[in-house]
Amino acid sequence: MAGFPGVKAAPFTYASHVLAVASAAMVLVWCIHFRGGLAFESTNKSLIFNIHPVLMLIGFIIVGSEAIMSYKTLPLSHEVNKVIHLTLHAIALVLGAVGIYAAFKFHNESGIDNLYSLHSWVGLGTICLYGIQWIFGFVTFFFPGASPTLRIKSLPWHVLFGLFVYILAIATAELGFLEKLTFLESSGLYKYSSESFLVNFTALVVIFLGASVVISANAPARGDAPQGYSSISEN
Amino acid sequence: MAGFPGVKAAPFTYASHVLAVASAAMVLVWCIHFRGGLAFESTNKSLIFNIHPVLMLIGFIIVGSEAIMSYKTLPLSHEVNKVIHLTLHAIALVLGAVGIYAAFKFHNESGIDNLYSLHSWVGLGTICLYGIQWIFGFVTFFFPGASPTLRIKSLPWHVLFGLFVYILAIATAELGFLEKLTFLESSGLYKYSSESFLVNFTALVVIFLGASVVISANAPARGDAPQGYSSISEN
Ligand code: HEM
Ligand code: HEM
Ligand code: HEM
Ligand code: HEM
Repeated sequence: MAGFPGVKAAPFTYASHVLAVASAAMVLVWCIHFRGGLAFESTNKSLIFNIHPVLMLIGFIIVGSEAIMSYKTLPLSHEVNKVIHLTLHAIALVLGAVGIYAAFKFHNESGIDNLYSLHSWVGLGTICLYGIQWIFGFVTFFFPGASPTLRIKSLPWHVLFGLFVYILAIATAELGFLEKLTFLESSGLYKYSSESFLVNFTALVVIFLGASVVISANAPARGDAPQGYSSISEN
Repeated sequence: MAGFPGVKAAPFTYASHVLAVASAAMVLVWCIHFRGGLAFESTNKSLIFNIHPVLMLIGFIIVGSEAIMSYKTLPLSHEVNKVIHLTLHAIALVLGAVGIYAAFKFHNESGIDNLYSLHSWVGLGTICLYGIQWIFGFVTFFFPGASPTLRIKSLPWHVLFGLFVYILAIATAELGFLEKLTFLESSGLYKYSSESFLVNFTALVVIFLGASVVISANAPARGDAPQGYSSISEN
């Protein structure tokens, strides 16, 4: 972060890992312990739905978070990091798509309308933009790869747009937690029950995860004024 | 934006004004035409609630947006802009507080629990952080004002934290739109009615407004490599 003297990425990447593990554990406890478990095929259609939050949070958001941080967290060469970055983002995209498929499957098998909510609109937009970002990143920085000048010029846009899509993904997850909990509460779940608190606290942890990842992406890998390493010149 | 050659703030501030006017009109049409109007005292408690989205969007988010952009949009001296910036943020804070008061008043007079939802938690957190940001900004940059070195060092933090709180406010508004529409739909509103579409499209316009304001805050006022003007040196 030009202008943030002395701030390094490392503490934020550590915090992100901890928040990622915490939120993953919380969403699993919610969907398995409180909501009856996960299944792709079942007569209890709720179990099909439960796949959705688990895959969207752990598969899409957390894997995507680790992908964004991979240049900062891994002690590997820039070339290797690049392959890890693009592979993790591809995994996030696929797991996210499967997670969305589970939501549609649940809706179709339960006779519920598709794509009526703000959550579903923003969510579908987010994953489309994520796919576009992936293709642009791949073509520009990996294969066939743009000219060095174009790489330098487009990297800030890659980061800006990447973080924008990431923030949208976080916001979509927040909308999803709120919507699901509102459904449950209007069919009788007590608003101050442990389950309600668990869901709301999971959503809060996800906000902190998002903030921590965004800050780490803006902070330099190794202190201010990095000497031997310039991300721009090596792409 | 260091590293975004040729991008200027002006087109984004124009876009933001247009999106602000559009979303303001949409929330008014929703609350007045579809939801029966606004009132601070009424036996129809819904009219008290309606104050909430109107004040949160127009009073808090839109006035706050204009406050953030004021250094870029107004052809005035830095000193005058500063007074406008802090005054607009103070107005946003007060209107936001009144808007939250309306939500509590509605809840209390209708016998509904307070502070059970993710929306209310994130919302209360947001307005508290907004107040803290205001006090820190005032003390550092206005009265008594910090030393020039400290101003230079803290400005990037002011901008980072200011934009973080602003993005939280946008996310809170999204959660609010989704929650209210979910309540209405579960008490019978058709999911593909014009009212449902109006609310969802208002929420989408608010996302675009937020993105546009954040980009304008990161873009330089007058092209790249500003010559006669450095925001850092003048604070
Ligand atoms: C970034 C992550 C997420 C994305 C991109 C996403 C996307 C989607 C999409 C596209 C649908 C529409 C399915 C249909 O119309 O048939 C949907 C439905 C749903 N999602 Fe998510 N989702 C995400 C995370 C979550 C999370 C964490 C929850 C928490 C429980 C959640 C809860 C729901 C619910 C309750 C529905 C059904 C109601 C509706 O259509 O809005 N989502 N999601
Ligand atoms: C949707 C998928 C993607 C997202 C959201 C994304 C996001 C990001 C973000 C936020 C950064 C900044 C990281 C930092 O500065 O710490 C970054 C850096 C980068 N990304 Fe991606 N990216 C995606 C896909 C790709 C792909 C497919 C490639 C192809 C190789 C790629 C190549 C790069 C490169 C070369 C950097 C620069 C790292 C550096 O030297 O600092 N990205 N990406
Ligand atoms: C940044 C803007 C906003 C903030 C800071 C905010 C804050 C709050 C707070 C603190 C409450 C709790 C009141 C209580 O517990 O008695 C609340 C309630 C509510 N707000 Fe907002 N709000 C915002 C925007 C909106 C918008 C745009 C809508 C759209 C309709 C909305 C809809 C609601 C609803 C339905 C409730 C009652 C249910 C609940 O407590 O969650 N809010 N808001
Ligand atoms: C909650 C309230 C506030 C928020 C959210 C906020 C946010 C921001 C943001 C986002 C910027 C960057 C604008 C840009 O670069 O275009 C900024 C700049 C600035 N703010 Fe604030 N601010 C707040 C209150 C204050 C207060 C009370 C003061 C006291 C004077 C202040 C003084 C400044 C100064 C001096 C700048 C630098 C403008 C420049 O020279 O580029 N802010 N603020």
